Amino acid sequence: MDSPLARRLAVARGDEPADLVVRGGRVFSVFTREWLETDVAVVDGWIAGLGEYEGRETLDASGRFVVPGFIDAHMHLESTKLLPDEFARLVLPLGTTAAVLDPHELANVLGTDGVHWLLDACADLPLDFYFMASSSIPASPFESPRRPLLLGDLESLLRRRRVLGVAEMMNFPGVIAGDADELAKIALAGSSHIDGHAPGVHGKELNAYAAAGIRSDHEALTAAEGRERLRAGMWLLIREASMARNLHALLPLVKEFGADWIAFCTDDRDPEDIAENGHINGMIREAVAAGVAPEDAILLASHNPAQWHRLWNLGAIAPGYRADLVVLPDLERFEPDVVLKAGKRPVEIPRPEVPEWVKHSVRIRRIEAGDFRIPWRGDGTKARVIGLVPDQVVTEHLVEEPTTADGAAVADAARDLAKVAVVERHLGTGRIGLGFVRGSGLRRGALASTVAHDAHNIVVVGVDDDDMTLAVQRLAELGGGIVAIDGGEVRAELPLVVAGLLADAPLADVIEQSLACNDAARELGWSGATPFLTLAFLALSVIPSLKITDRGLVDVDRFELVPLEAG
Amino acid sequence: MDSPLARRLAVARGDEPADLVVRGGRVFSVFTREWLETDVAVVDGWIAGLGEYEGRETLDASGRFVVPGFIDAHMHLESTKLLPDEFARLVLPLGTTAAVLDPHELANVLGTDGVHWLLDACADLPLDFYFMASSSIPASPFESPRRPLLLGDLESLLRRRRVLGVAEMMNFPGVIAGDADELAKIALAGSSHIDGHAPGVHGKELNAYAAAGIRSDHEALTAAEGRERLRAGMWLLIREASMARNLHALLPLVKEFGADWIAFCTDDRDPEDIAENGHINGMIREAVAAGVAPEDAILLASHNPAQWHRLWNLGAIAPGYRADLVVLPDLERFEPDVVLKAGKRPVEIPRPEVPEWVKHSVRIRRIEAGDFRIPWRGDGTKARVIGLVPDQVVTEHLVEEPTTADGAAVADAARDLAKVAVVERHLGTGRIGLGFVRGSGLRRGALASTVAHDAHNIVVVGVDDDDMTLAVQRLAELGGGIVAIDGGEVRAELPLVVAGLLADAPLADVIEQSLACNDAARELGWSGATPFLTLAFLALSVIPSLKITDRGLVDVDRFELVPLEAG
Repeated sequence: MDSPLARRLAVARGDEPADLVVRGGRVFSVFTREWLETDVAVVDGWIAGLGEYEGRETLDASGRFVVPGFIDAHMHLESTKLLPDEFARLVLPLGTTAAVLDPHELANVLGTDGVHWLLDACADLPLDFYFMASSSIPASPFESPRRPLLLGDLESLLRRRRVLGVAEMMNFPGVIAGDADELAKIALAGSSHIDGHAPGVHGKELNAYAAAGIRSDHEALTAAEGRERLRAGMWLLIREASMARNLHALLPLVKEFGADWIAFCTDDRDPEDIAENGHINGMIREAVAAGVAPEDAILLASHNPAQWHRLWNLGAIAPGYRADLVVLPDLERFEPDVVLKAGKRPVEIPRPEVPEWVKHSVRIRRIEAGDFRIPWRGDGTKARVIGLVPDQVVTEHLVEEPTTADGAAVADAARDLAKVAVVERHLGTGRIGLGFVRGSGLRRGALASTVAHDAHNIVVVGVDDDDMTLAVQRLAELGGGIVAIDGGEVRAELPLVVAGLLADAPLADVIEQSLACNDAARELGWSGATPFLTLAFLALSVIPSLKITDRGLVDVDRFELVPLEAG
Repeated sequence: MDSPLARRLAVARGDEPADLVVRGGRVFSVFTREWLETDVAVVDGWIAGLGEYEGRETLDASGRFVVPGFIDAHMHLESTKLLPDEFARLVLPLGTTAAVLDPHELANVLGTDGVHWLLDACADLPLDFYFMASSSIPASPFESPRRPLLLGDLESLLRRRRVLGVAEMMNFPGVIAGDADELAKIALAGSSHIDGHAPGVHGKELNAYAAAGIRSDHEALTAAEGRERLRAGMWLLIREASMARNLHALLPLVKEFGADWIAFCTDDRDPEDIAENGHINGMIREAVAAGVAPEDAILLASHNPAQWHRLWNLGAIAPGYRADLVVLPDLERFEPDVVLKAGKRPVEIPRPEVPEWVKHSVRIRRIEAGDFRIPWRGDGTKARVIGLVPDQVVTEHLVEEPTTADGAAVADAARDLAKVAVVERHLGTGRIGLGFVRGSGLRRGALASTVAHDAHNIVVVGVDDDDMTLAVQRLAELGGGIVAIDGGEVRAELPLVVAGLLADAPLADVIEQSLACNDAARELGWSGATPFLTLAFLALSVIPSLKITDRGLVDVDRFELVPLEAG
């Protein structure tokens, strides 16, 4: 055979044996929603034909269901804390064979260099990683990534083969208002495919957002919001993230309108969550348990994300499609017996090289306890305080008189007032934002993390300045991660050496260390929601109400920096 | 406003008045299949938003239905015999606002130059003409277009903005067999979007055709064939052409599987047919009359063809889509009250310049009656004869002893045996193929046409060599067209001066002249189906069984040239 395509056609015609024939299964047609009793002939990783075929190998799928591989329509790999190969090891057995990533955490830390590296690192893995070009770095003018991503950066990313379009346009107020910078991103050649991010946007503002050419949203929380997005011509990406679970609220729309223009995504999933609840297959299972037809649920998880992202050769079992096949014993549990990626069972998944330069992202100026001192007059002056809201990424904007000692405002465990600081960690500027947080329950020590959306500077919460200092120093030594410090000692830590975001370790280690850190935090008194996820969102300056960055406190509702001293 | 997009967003937000508000109608959402009671705000030709809006102008759609403009998924403009502006005048009032053309007739005559000219001529019309790059010129090695279209020609076409992909791959046996030439067309950069043409292809051969990446077919004749194509992952383009009406046979599939992956097209429509039965709107009307839900029928006619052809901004009424709107008084007749193209009622449709060079395509060597003489031994030798089949483009392969006179085989009206010739008319080579045809009923004179698929040489049928000579000469004088000659005089003619295919005249004249030619043919005794359409397909060497080109008779079943003298 002179070419792979010629060979594929020869197999399709029946003139050559297939590499593999999947035989005896009930094969799902995404086009007719039928279960076809047919063989699937595979050659060179592609489906050659459905019908009766002979092959060098046979996979007996008798009595089982054969469906297309699952595709995550929108996710941030960084939330899994795993390198892409380890992520593949985790989710391939769950049926996920492709994912569309917005690598904006990595891009905040490592710029486009980091994205190009990750693209290359994913290239040869037995899971298709597609990217969207991160559109909103920094997330706001109050955040300090290593550098902003400008229009030219986006252009360079969009030229890459596996970059499909522009990632979620998080500056939705800017888009709606017609800001020139945002419209320039939309106008970029190749950016006719754009993901949306429009929390709480309605009516004419949603019209404006859609009129800009943004045709998806994964921030709908209610069926009413989802319905409005569908009517506006936007794909409804149903998100089931660890911290934002929208599946059950939106499933009624599938029953109301059918599966068209709806797809599944996970957005941000912790590794523990995937290990416990599955990935896209878990969303299918829950949808079916909630009464959605299995055929619809499978469409939402396979062909629909492929259609939204224009991945023309993925998401279906038909001639000319990639042989990404999931064999299911039933249509209830959605736990695959066999997963084929490009016609093969992924056995040995290689570990791509992790170069030195992505492992040395933490650059801080020498730090000491005095850096956390907050001089304060003891005359009744009040301070802005970040109020934690259990299980939410929003915070309250509180005003209280801080406890003082030796001319400084100090943490006071008795009043549940901890100190919080954000230390710039990309350029070693020494810039530190300082403030207070209520609702952590922390009684001793300090917790710190280099995972702190979106700029991923170091966020540290503590009741002891020395422990806070040590926490930051320890993260600098590790090259990033999360850490719990008490009485001058490391109680637990999870190194995240790649950009301070991803672990260069197996899943089991990551989960074990992560749980150890959580346990250590609880021992220090932490009583709020998942401690390090809470820390990670304290610095995200685009979610209400009061946040903190290395530049100081941000009143998100007024969208401006505000002093610690209240009014 | 600094940019059109900024202005669109301002209108969407309600900060600026729209150019036009369509008010009071029931607006069809292709995404939810709902009829929304909402305004449609239009600015600069785009839809800015649905909701309550104010505008400089208002269109009252009270009590009526507002649906997206109709799109013809696959058609050959040349069959309408109209220049694109005249075609637009004809079909815009019928609701057609976009069409995807395969200009392969023109390309046979004028090469890529002709296609580039037509692309440019269509550019400013108030109907969107998109093209597919004609993939099969010549249609077979037995035909003589002016020149073949080679891979580089296709590449040049695919680089044009409004060229969407590769047009119907008519050499389906070549594709299925894996011919290197055909696979090279498929491999062309940008040709990931390819229309199919797979009459009677089934089973593993259909798998091979689909596995090559060809994802549509408009040649399905039965529900079984349509079902097979859908299961193979191919878009089912339901064709209702003047000579090939498949609508009613395929509509059951819409009821069986819903509207997904199905779209309407007209392929080849005579001008008379459109004038009498409508265009895409006629297909909707017939579908609804046959029991298809109006919502499904509208989808098949609007958003679905847009989706197949990846025309992301067409086929829906939602923010950011082109304001191509059809206002219907009812959901039965589908005769629009108002049609808006890019937000405007098309009033004055300009006539694009028709350059001299496209009007001088008929180049023949001097011809005389002797050129049609067929020397023949009168010893009982038999001849191959083309047997016409009423209302079909297929023919029978007959064998008969011809009538002889003066050492030549001659036409014999008494035996219903007319002479047929194909005269090469692109390069003036003087090449003539000669033969006989049974079943025309012709008793006198001659009929000739420069419309003769696919190479469009001159086909002439007659019972008198002098009249045949005059017919060919007359077509050369006209620069192309169709003509009926009797007793040395022109009885009727339709000049088709553009490439010998299209009239540089208004629709009414074309229809009048066309009918006059048909009448004249009847007067000459023609008793078969539409005379000049019959002529047009006598030379198409890829449709069984016996055809004729300038190179001689073609046994299509054996796919080879055969002599007139039978075995």
